[in-house]
Amino acid sequence: MGVSTPTGLQLRSLARANGQVELSLVSVPVPDPLPDEVLVRIEASPINPSDQGLLFAAADLSTATYSGTADRPVVTAAIPRERMGVVAGRLDQSMPVGNEGAGVVVAAGASNEARALLGKTVAVIGGGMYSQYRSIKVEQCLVLPEGTTAAEGAACFVNPLTALGMVETMRREGHSALVHTAAASNLGQMLNRICLADGVGLVNIVRSQAQENTLRALGALHVCNSTSSAFTQELTAAIIATGATLAFDAIGGGPLAGHILTCMEVAASRNATVYSRYGSTTHKQVYVYGRLDLRPIELAGGYGMAWGVGGWLLWPFLQKVGTAAAQALRDRVVAELKTTFASHYAKSVSLAEALQPDAIEAYGRRATGEKYLITPQKGVAE
Amino acid sequence: MGVSTPTGLQLRSLARANGQVELSLVSVPVPDPLPDEVLVRIEASPINPSDQGLLFAAADLSTATYSGTADRPVVTAAIPRERMGVVAGRLDQSMPVGNEGAGVVVAAGASNEARALLGKTVAVIGGGMYSQYRSIKVEQCLVLPEGTTAAEGAACFVNPLTALGMVETMRREGHSALVHTAAASNLGQMLNRICLADGVGLVNIVRSQAQENTLRALGALHVCNSTSSAFTQELTAAIIATGATLAFDAIGGGPLAGHILTCMEVAASRNATVYSRYGSTTHKQVYVYGRLDLRPIELAGGYGMAWGVGGWLLWPFLQKVGTAAAQALRDRVVAELKTTFASHYAKSVSLAEALQPDAIEAYGRRATGEKYLITPQKGVAE
Repeated sequence: MGVSTPTGLQLRSLARANGQVELSLVSVPVPDPLPDEVLVRIEASPINPSDQGLLFAAADLSTATYSGTADRPVVTAAIPRERMGVVAGRLDQSMPVGNEGAGVVVAAGASNEARALLGKTVAVIGGGMYSQYRSIKVEQCLVLPEGTTAAEGAACFVNPLTALGMVETMRREGHSALVHTAAASNLGQMLNRICLADGVGLVNIVRSQAQENTLRALGALHVCNSTSSAFTQELTAAIIATGATLAFDAIGGGPLAGHILTCMEVAASRNATVYSRYGSTTHKQVYVYGRLDLRPIELAGGYGMAWGVGGWLLWPFLQKVGTAAAQALRDRVVAELKTTFASHYAKSVSLAEALQPDAIEAYGRRATGEKYLITPQKGVAE
Repeated sequence: MGVSTPTGLQLRSLARANGQVELSLVSVPVPDPLPDEVLVRIEASPINPSDQGLLFAAADLSTATYSGTADRPVVTAAIPRERMGVVAGRLDQSMPVGNEGAGVVVAAGASNEARALLGKTVAVIGGGMYSQYRSIKVEQCLVLPEGTTAAEGAACFVNPLTALGMVETMRREGHSALVHTAAASNLGQMLNRICLADGVGLVNIVRSQAQENTLRALGALHVCNSTSSAFTQELTAAIIATGATLAFDAIGGGPLAGHILTCMEVAASRNATVYSRYGSTTHKQVYVYGRLDLRPIELAGGYGMAWGVGGWLLWPFLQKVGTAAAQALRDRVVAELKTTFASHYAKSVSLAEALQPDAIEAYGRRATGEKYLITPQKGVAE
């Protein structure tokens, strides 16, 4: 008998044509890095809202059933029939999950660039990070500064670059201030810190008094609680105060996007001296970057003709701005990793723990303050 | 007693804070043109859908009551409470109506440019054209070629430039084919002729078999009837055949805009070999340029992240493309006024006839084939 190939655990999501999604752990061979690749022992990987779409395949988590063993749990849940179209392209394919993470380079391909990373702690982006080992191209690694742990660097791509991308989009498209929904989120707190540091007006929309308190404690100047009876007036006043004509919306369902446009239009036309039935000429834009609310977006009108609503996604944005601009954003993330871009987690869990009922019920809510970190080496003997 | 000042009739729309709109004719002094203006005796002015928003002030026409005399009719109708916000900026102001028209220059200001137009038949743009006389800047006039009547030139701005603007927007924003809704309209027929002449793929969405027949008789290659049970498949097939990733939507309410995006996404991702939960990278755009349906726009999702929906309006478009490009579009309109850009009217009516129940019931439906032309000199002694 030969020497057994080393293996590592990997979390998989499998949406079946019968309408069930199945989450499980599989044992996969530890890959050999190609010349331009390194092998990273993943130490930490966040469960971002943007990971959960792939993870849960639009399933209704209230239907989840749990089986398997403590070491090899299996979660099954039903995908509502009306959402099957969303997952049509992935049916019956077992998909690895996890956009980003961080860990230690334990093997390298033949190239000098790859070998230079040996032993370094790196942040990595590229999918499949809910794994114990991941082979990945050198260019998808970011070397973390001395004294930075993998847990501290695990989330240094998605949320930090998204928050910076919002401000950069604002500047490039000629706006001067921002509205942000679900603003007390991990990402929202980063955006608040960026805007305070850069002197950019930011209107934070939250859904509870507790979230409002969180942001105010962080120095946020404009916080509007959508459950307040005076929400419309407060939002309009904050938009007037900041001059915001651009919003980034993580909710992406229901009337909120249209409501923001209406308040922007009231702000834009409040000093109009001549009536125009086409509304103000000020362009008002909402970019939807998340779908916390799966209902349709409802645009009731009443904001004239100079408006837009559209999807916004980090990767095409980074491609559009080009390598140099994208690198400048990454440099800022590394420089401010323990301040502006610090992430906080409710809990660290192993791959197996991530598939337990208590964990899924907590992070599956995608609620502010319930962010989980997967630490795939937890409980593994060195 | 001195000589009486000459007067002319003008149609007015007055939305009152009490929720009533009142349409009537008033007698106004014939204005003296300023140096850079001419006085036009308006011979013809179309009732475009874009005029009816200002005319009816979002009133519910089923509540219309008719009073006054045959010569000076008065129409009153109720504005639904939920639409009062749309007209808040014009309450208690008596507004002239009518974006465009054509007529004869009967007096001119002192400038050479103005005097050069004396006696010419001109098309004019600028509002208030449901009048017997209109003083207007020379630059808002377009001299009609010899042998062109005012009726033939009355609608040479709004619909022709909008149709040309759609194709120009398509080219400037990197799309190569178009989808158009309410496609059997006067404007839609122009767009069909432009696209056939220019070799641009056009998917015409209509709402009846009769409209489908109309467009097919005009040579339209792709016509999809939204009342067909196979509409989704037919629309997707037409989008695949043309490669359309841009739509212009006159409906602007309900699920249609989102439905078009979904079909575009199916077309864009049909050959995908790797699943992306963010959908295709093809940008899919719907511009809403009308609101034939006053319900909210409903965007159900399922078309990834590369999408946009927004308002589109002719005047900002013309400003954005600049003087030379706008002039090129106008030149084409004049050159093809009796072919590509010919308008057809169900009826010509005087100002007083335009406020009679039968007329309002007909053109107020904004239905394809029910376009009216106002001829303000009708019945007036020379």
